[in-house]
Amino acid sequence: MKAAMLYEYDPAVNINLKLEEVKPPEITAPDEVIVRVGAAGLCRTDLHIIEGIWKPTMDPEGHLLPYIMGHENAGWVEDVGSGVKSVKPGDAVICHPFRSCGVCLNCRHGEDMHCEAGSFPGLGMNGGFAEYFVTSERSLIKLKKGIVPLEVAPLADAGITAYRVAKKAARLLRPGGYCVLLGIGGLGHISLQSLHAISGCRIIAIDKEPAAQKLAKELGADVVLDGGPNVIEEVREITGGGAHVVIDFVGELGLENLCWKMVRKGGQLFVVGYGGKIEMPTIQLVIEEINIGGSLVGNYTELVELMELNADGKVKMHYTEYNLADINTAIDDFKHRRFTGRGVIVP
Amino acid sequence: MKAAMLYEYDPAVNINLKLEEVKPPEITAPDEVIVRVGAAGLCRTDLHIIEGIWKPTMDPEGHLLPYIMGHENAGWVEDVGSGVKSVKPGDAVICHPFRSCGVCLNCRHGEDMHCEAGSFPGLGMNGGFAEYFVTSERSLIKLKKGIVPLEVAPLADAGITAYRVAKKAARLLRPGGYCVLLGIGGLGHISLQSLHAISGCRIIAIDKEPAAQKLAKELGADVVLDGGPNVIEEVREITGGGAHVVIDFVGELGLENLCWKMVRKGGQLFVVGYGGKIEMPTIQLVIEEINIGGSLVGNYTELVELMELNADGKVKMHYTEYNLADINTAIDDFKHRRFTGRGVIVP
Amino acid sequence: MKAAMLYEYDPAVNINLKLEEVKPPEITAPDEVIVRVGAAGLCRTDLHIIEGIWKPTMDPEGHLLPYIMGHENAGWVEDVGSGVKSVKPGDAVICHPFRSCGVCLNCRHGEDMHCEAGSFPGLGMNGGFAEYFVTSERSLIKLKKGIVPLEVAPLADAGITAYRVAKKAARLLRPGGYCVLLGIGGLGHISLQSLHAISGCRIIAIDKEPAAQKLAKELGADVVLDGGPNVIEEVREITGGGAHVVIDFVGELGLENLCWKMVRKGGQLFVVGYGGKIEMPTIQLVIEEINIGGSLVGNYTELVELMELNADGKVKMHYTEYNLADINTAIDDFKHRRFTGRGVIVP
Amino acid sequence: MKAAMLYEYDPAVNINLKLEEVKPPEITAPDEVIVRVGAAGLCRTDLHIIEGIWKPTMDPEGHLLPYIMGHENAGWVEDVGSGVKSVKPGDAVICHPFRSCGVCLNCRHGEDMHCEAGSFPGLGMNGGFAEYFVTSERSLIKLKKGIVPLEVAPLADAGITAYRVAKKAARLLRPGGYCVLLGIGGLGHISLQSLHAISGCRIIAIDKEPAAQKLAKELGADVVLDGGPNVIEEVREITGGGAHVVIDFVGELGLENLCWKMVRKGGQLFVVGYGGKIEMPTIQLVIEEINIGGSLVGNYTELVELMELNADGKVKMHYTEYNLADINTAIDDFKHRRFTGRGVIVP
Repeated sequence: MKAAMLYEYDPAVNINLKLEEVKPPEITAPDEVIVRVGAAGLCRTDLHIIEGIWKPTMDPEGHLLPYIMGHENAGWVEDVGSGVKSVKPGDAVICHPFRSCGVCLNCRHGEDMHCEAGSFPGLGMNGGFAEYFVTSERSLIKLKKGIVPLEVAPLADAGITAYRVAKKAARLLRPGGYCVLLGIGGLGHISLQSLHAISGCRIIAIDKEPAAQKLAKELGADVVLDGGPNVIEEVREITGGGAHVVIDFVGELGLENLCWKMVRKGGQLFVVGYGGKIEMPTIQLVIEEINIGGSLVGNYTELVELMELNADGKVKMHYTEYNLADINTAIDDFKHRRFTGRGVIVP
Repeated sequence: MKAAMLYEYDPAVNINLKLEEVKPPEITAPDEVIVRVGAAGLCRTDLHIIEGIWKPTMDPEGHLLPYIMGHENAGWVEDVGSGVKSVKPGDAVICHPFRSCGVCLNCRHGEDMHCEAGSFPGLGMNGGFAEYFVTSERSLIKLKKGIVPLEVAPLADAGITAYRVAKKAARLLRPGGYCVLLGIGGLGHISLQSLHAISGCRIIAIDKEPAAQKLAKELGADVVLDGGPNVIEEVREITGGGAHVVIDFVGELGLENLCWKMVRKGGQLFVVGYGGKIEMPTIQLVIEEINIGGSLVGNYTELVELMELNADGKVKMHYTEYNLADINTAIDDFKHRRFTGRGVIVP
Repeated sequence: MKAAMLYEYDPAVNINLKLEEVKPPEITAPDEVIVRVGAAGLCRTDLHIIEGIWKPTMDPEGHLLPYIMGHENAGWVEDVGSGVKSVKPGDAVICHPFRSCGVCLNCRHGEDMHCEAGSFPGLGMNGGFAEYFVTSERSLIKLKKGIVPLEVAPLADAGITAYRVAKKAARLLRPGGYCVLLGIGGLGHISLQSLHAISGCRIIAIDKEPAAQKLAKELGADVVLDGGPNVIEEVREITGGGAHVVIDFVGELGLENLCWKMVRKGGQLFVVGYGGKIEMPTIQLVIEEINIGGSLVGNYTELVELMELNADGKVKMHYTEYNLADINTAIDDFKHRRFTGRGVIVP
Repeated sequence: MKAAMLYEYDPAVNINLKLEEVKPPEITAPDEVIVRVGAAGLCRTDLHIIEGIWKPTMDPEGHLLPYIMGHENAGWVEDVGSGVKSVKPGDAVICHPFRSCGVCLNCRHGEDMHCEAGSFPGLGMNGGFAEYFVTSERSLIKLKKGIVPLEVAPLADAGITAYRVAKKAARLLRPGGYCVLLGIGGLGHISLQSLHAISGCRIIAIDKEPAAQKLAKELGADVVLDGGPNVIEEVREITGGGAHVVIDFVGELGLENLCWKMVRKGGQLFVVGYGGKIEMPTIQLVIEEINIGGSLVGNYTELVELMELNADGKVKMHYTEYNLADINTAIDDFKHRRFTGRGVIVP
């Protein structure tokens, strides 16, 4: 099958993936499923993988390369292991990115991403920048009639990361409350729509890119800011003392230490983007009674919920389509933010 | 001042209120506020008061009549007691219907309606079917610029009752979940809009009146049913085994015992309307693990939230305006459901 | 193997189980586990099964009998199916009573008891009143060192039913709040201990049996009542207007309609026992804003939590041991409440 | 009256308060209450006030000194303003430290400490290191029969700070879960008892002082550690990967950056002590999905709950009594941790 292979790490992300013909995957356990890839989203984590940031976690001994990235996959079931009951060849599916064990206590609590014995196709094992990849039955959600892989693939990871944090935020936001979204990219624009769908709050979208600002407006942000030097004062003014919730999709470049200054007393900062370092005096944390929480990829049930919102037309992924043959162009466009929303690779 | 006086109870609700010239109210305590009525909503509870249902509670000794009903009031501050700080004459306000003490533990928990020492203008003391009425500082919320009393008065009671139960429901509803609303009248149509604003659930609206069905469709109900003899089966079919939440705005006429049969395992019935009697075998309650909860008028903070949704254009009261002089026509039209939404009396 | 067989239903519960030598169970699926029974609790549901109450649900076509009851089992793994990874022969285990599928959405939410494709050994298929029975890997929790099956078996069902409702109650109870427990039997005495362990509330235990009253006192109930004719007034007096939570472990004999009269405004009744019928005017439900909820058997994670409380010495099952050969004596003693706590059958 | 006056700030906390005869306070508003001080707790915040840390907040223009500290007060009502209804002279009371307005939205949500128009006797205005001080009606809770000011005064601030964070923690802790308490001083020993009362978790107490370790053991900590260089590994070992909740009562001296390393995936750090600075890479926050939250003084309703736990004998303040004349000795002993629990000043 055709596949885009990563042969080396490169902090500058200048190397190219190599397009090759490789052996397709095979079923090796009763719960496995081979999926014919219909579409695979391109994620900032893919850039971080190329940079080598993930090497210590997913490739500590340095034996992984070459391998196939791609962890936001949707397509059609091609083959199933002997124990699989809930899907059959031909079914259109979206794939939760994590293969969880289903037995450990974290899985029993529904926290798939904290599973003690899971694996992550596309991070440390072959993923979906290819014609086929292998996952497990527990990862699959059947697509409803009329839903096609190309239009939903990035919901599998970017989508549920954005939805999970929006859901956490919605629990804290009353009508009249304000939520700041910092960064209206692949994740931010899904959080924006999710918040509108499940919460009555007001949304302040911050992004320095005009295209992202335009998208935020179209998706109904109540206020759109460009993140200039007075952004903290602007937010404090609009919100009457600080936002109830701030969601930071950047998490680096110093923005991580602007964000907690936008939060009102008793409010919450969620951090989704990473790379930087939070530095915060404990006195401020205590007196303002601020909360700071990391937020990771969503769970299986969150992907189910997001697919329902998508089926109801309430959350749509904005994307730019690239053929697998053009994946290096897609990566370059992503690096330079030449598209809004998400880039999607089609084999 | 002009006022509509209730002189006797009548189970058939055929008697008329008498329009009279009476002495306007005066300030008698430092926290009191006189409000010039801009608009006063007409509530089903007013019909129940006329019927005499509330007599044992609000008039046990029979000395109350004649008196002035009207507990959904908005208008302008006319005069304030010596201790009032947060409003001044001329301010446009909406009035939470309950004068809570602010000292008891229920008030400290924000549960104004369970206050141990409150009073309720319009129920047991003079209310707003008049040119002026008296309430207290703790009941008032200033109207934002551009909001006028006529368009919001019924939010003060019908509105927050509907919003409170919608908020309780929203906590239980995930995207893809179903909420049944039984009765799309003055309350139901506010719950419908509130649920859309604060939850990503799907809504099944049930009402036998074509005008109410039409309103439900316009407000975006996902499914509208006429409540025919197969309604339980219809709901179970659409929802795949029962609704996650059912809200019963009728609560009588036998509907109260249809409603819990529409609820899925682990689901919730909220009862807002009253008059009937729930009869449910405990085995069904246990095996299906169903929850049944009454829901009362909303609290002050819920009125604040609802006014924010209204200011954002997300929840609007549908109403028909009547002059105070025509209040008996309004009551008759209400009895016979000749208008959808709410009737509003303007002095 | 030896087993106690039920050959016929008898509304008076006068028939005897027959002790026979039968063929032991065999593994027929990869996730199955054969457990050598160490101890099996005797449950009121067993009496209801004999009465025939459960026949329409678990034996609609009448082909089930003879079969082996017993759904509160602990023992040692005897044999495992080919796919079982987490336990091995010889492991001491307690068995969650329900074999859940692990794939449906209810399982993904951790609600094992609402699984769409589960089965229940002891109800409709052979259970643990025998030397061996078969269950599945997902049902098993390994016993910690020093914990023996005899002392914990009834925690598997009576225990988690009692713990689940105590956990629901604890979420609603602040220090200074009151919880009424009606019926201090096999379930009630576990709820009492659980509430003490996980909540700072005060507990009012009600039981007409002196032995149960004595047990309640020993376990630290703050108040013990005998449930005489003035019980509603007594509770209202002690609690200053009604209990914050009432848990009804009886659910029949008219007590189900006493219970909601003990609940304070905004309070909660949980119903665990069954057989009677709740009859409640909707006006009372609404004005008092009372909540009534059925509560079923606990989930797997609740059994994990209860086993932790047991390991910490915070919750202990009070039991009377019977040999399998004496199971009919045990049933008779249970019918006539000749023991407090739980009866446990040892093969 | 006698009072201990602060005349200057001193970063080294070597200056003495001056004991003087001053004019007693008078009622100046209808909601005010004069309390005859029965006992006043000595708080670490008092040391920070002397150090000058609080000067920018409470004394920005430098006109405050000399003034009387003391914000953990209990005693007897001496005189009341004209509008006070709920207490009368002679009533024994404990005083919530904050005088909240009762009108702003934060007050309506029960969040007294975030009140927009409150004041804080002892911080920026005269407090209770004297024979009398003035507060407001909304701050007072009557003591139950048999409860004396000396035994409860520090519950008013240290107590509710410790209880509030314990209550937040309890919501996150299941039986079998672990909570680390770092610092078993005036706050820590109350949190420890509160957690035992309202949660079924296991508690790991960390303190380098042998006397504090001994107190922790007596109060039932499951594990007591001395906070040596391997403390992170010790906690990770005992808890199987990290504590579910860590509460940091120190918040400085570098401990603030040990604490988040003891938290397990998805877990929570609460910060109560202050002085240091949290420094945490966003990638760790995200991948571990850790939450960090400041926690402030508790609200009025939390003081009500804590007084109930105290009345039930579940939470007791350990204290050392000092006469007002010996307040400088008390401060010196506190600085050098010569007592466990709390120092209490009696006029």
